[in-house]
Amino acid sequence: MANIVIKLDEQTLTSPDKIENVAKKIIEEKKRGLNVVVVVPSMQLIDEQLNQYAYSLSNNPSNREMDVIHSTNTQVASALLSIAINQQGFKAISLTGWQAGIETVASKRAVLIDFIQSEYITEHLKKDKITIIAGGQGKSEDNNITLLGDGGPETSAVAIAIAIDAERVDIYTNSIGLFTADPTVVKKARKLKQITYDEMLELSHLGSKVVHPRAVELAKKYNLPLNVCSSTENVPGTLIKGEIEMERNLIVRGVAYETDIIRLTVGYESYEQASLANLFTTLAEHRINVDIIVQAVIDGVKPTVSFSIEKEVFAEAIKVLETNKSSLGFAFADFEVGLSKVSIVGSGMVSNPGVAARMFDRLRKENIEVKMVSTSEIKVSVVVPQDDMVRAANALHDEFNLVEELA
Amino acid sequence: MANIVIKLDEQTLTSPDKIENVAKKIIEEKKRGLNVVVVVPSMQLIDEQLNQYAYSLSNNPSNREMDVIHSTNTQVASALLSIAINQQGFKAISLTGWQAGIETVASKRAVLIDFIQSEYITEHLKKDKITIIAGGQGKSEDNNITLLGDGGPETSAVAIAIAIDAERVDIYTNSIGLFTADPTVVKKARKLKQITYDEMLELSHLGSKVVHPRAVELAKKYNLPLNVCSSTENVPGTLIKGEIEMERNLIVRGVAYETDIIRLTVGYESYEQASLANLFTTLAEHRINVDIIVQAVIDGVKPTVSFSIEKEVFAEAIKVLETNKSSLGFAFADFEVGLSKVSIVGSGMVSNPGVAARMFDRLRKENIEVKMVSTSEIKVSVVVPQDDMVRAANALHDEFNLVEELA
Repeated sequence: MANIVIKLDEQTLTSPDKIENVAKKIIEEKKRGLNVVVVVPSMQLIDEQLNQYAYSLSNNPSNREMDVIHSTNTQVASALLSIAINQQGFKAISLTGWQAGIETVASKRAVLIDFIQSEYITEHLKKDKITIIAGGQGKSEDNNITLLGDGGPETSAVAIAIAIDAERVDIYTNSIGLFTADPTVVKKARKLKQITYDEMLELSHLGSKVVHPRAVELAKKYNLPLNVCSSTENVPGTLIKGEIEMERNLIVRGVAYETDIIRLTVGYESYEQASLANLFTTLAEHRINVDIIVQAVIDGVKPTVSFSIEKEVFAEAIKVLETNKSSLGFAFADFEVGLSKVSIVGSGMVSNPGVAARMFDRLRKENIEVKMVSTSEIKVSVVVPQDDMVRAANALHDEFNLVEELA
Repeated sequence: MANIVIKLDEQTLTSPDKIENVAKKIIEEKKRGLNVVVVVPSMQLIDEQLNQYAYSLSNNPSNREMDVIHSTNTQVASALLSIAINQQGFKAISLTGWQAGIETVASKRAVLIDFIQSEYITEHLKKDKITIIAGGQGKSEDNNITLLGDGGPETSAVAIAIAIDAERVDIYTNSIGLFTADPTVVKKARKLKQITYDEMLELSHLGSKVVHPRAVELAKKYNLPLNVCSSTENVPGTLIKGEIEMERNLIVRGVAYETDIIRLTVGYESYEQASLANLFTTLAEHRINVDIIVQAVIDGVKPTVSFSIEKEVFAEAIKVLETNKSSLGFAFADFEVGLSKVSIVGSGMVSNPGVAARMFDRLRKENIEVKMVSTSEIKVSVVVPQDDMVRAANALHDEFNLVEELA
């Protein structure tokens, strides 16, 4: 009997009705004769309340104890889902991270899954139970309850799928799959049948929050297919996998965007003073995530460096620059708000030079000013005025023929 | 360094302020140079909400999953207390049942503590951490999260104290100890300095909810002192232990009462039909707890049996009697409401015949009608009209000189 893993999204756990509905959908998979593992994310409902309580006791509660508290969230969610499945006459069991044999190890920046003792999961699958696992958690070697952090539930789902040799992971979402662009912005956007891991990685770094890059990277490493699909409707989703057939001619697979980008510019008196390493290390130490970096190196002109950040960290970034002005050695700092980032993504770009040029050309024809540019092998991003964002996304969607049903 | 165990009561966890206050009191013990283990009960705050959610999914959720859900309650409570202690500059760590090495085994009627791997607790005490353990829970041999049921947190506290060879268990309450009678009913009631396990067992079965009999029995088996004391005030509490000094002359140690008692009477046509075993087995099967049983066996009179029950199960008891009238073989059933039970408890009774007689005599002088009587070696209980309950309790408190400060 084949194994599959289903990863739920938070939207499916916000009311008893929704839990009942997703229980029915899970049971349908079971009825197809599959061994089903379900990985649940946290229930926002409970989380916020616990947070408030903890922070009313301390401004700086220990990570260890906050993990103990927040782990109960997915523990409760998985037990509730198990009860809902039982109620419909099917066998189910909920497992916490430690009960599912998920052993974690702490790295410098994150808690990682070290290994999974899969027999703790497979023993229940053999007894024909739908096995529900609290996502994003495990236990460390010294018996602490640990949380995996960002992207935890997806990462649990992928790691479990690898450990039990599952066919695929179904990633349940409130959409019917991934689209060539955000349908609320680009009217002609259409659903993708397939997408590669690398394309998905670029898309997820661009703010498509459906699958965390951490989980995509792990799936890519083990060539495990991820199926992004609806948690309510019975329609095919988007398959994320290694190689995609029959569409080499589709250079660009999707258009993505991000709003509320701010450009900061720092100017130096001389090249000697301009230490980019210093600048970005200092920002990183204050957890300010910098996205695009553009360094202007023009003879006879004093050097400047521009970089984009998200609105949320703007105030903190300004503070860090002001506080460290002398040690960072810059002469002035400037900023521009009201910007957006628009990106095109597609693995076809690798073998198609001139994609970026075609993008710039189209934006020029649309009279859209490009403020910053960043490129990777399968992605080109431009920063444009926020007011032009929708127009830019539609123009690029049109330019690269994304309306054609090829994949 | 000596070990002590502190068992908190639910009242100390109802607000962040209260958690901070009890954290301070715990830290005082630590400052005395003791290794401190704290056992926390559930936080009603969270529990009720989770219950509602589960029962909106199923009328009959599995015990296993309900245990998974409710165990999070004490898990959160212990982490919050740990945060509060940290905030005051002291080291603390929270442990769930499984993290504390508490292994349980299921018996026919309850989940019992099988053994405790105490090194999971002592390793933290050696590091000078105040070790906070989620009460009333553990894990079974097959890795399930289990709840101990009624009296769970106290039982955890006593079992842990035995496992780590603690000096005593401090049972924190919202009173300053145990009293010779309820001070709201008997004005002259005074606090007891000491009481024996057996006396405490009789008192706790009589409705004094401070320490569950299950925990007292375990403490008695290992001769572990329990100190019932205030969770806020710094005054000596009541010590529950095996032998009490200097007060053999105090025959009765306390007066207890219970209100809302109902007397049911069942009458039979003949002795052949009167199967008490049948009657009480049937009631037990419907979880109707019967307290005092009085069988009238008078020659020439048809046999009757009277028994007392609590108000809460009255409707159910009547239903059971009606439904099973033919199989139980009784001719009529009758009841009397508006009754109370008043008891005197004291291990001095064993060597003092005539205590019951003295009790009845005093009640007769007070013109209080005794409806039912029940006696044990160290207790005499009478059922009286509810309206006479306060008078009866005060009279008996007076009769047996409980106002005298002897213990």
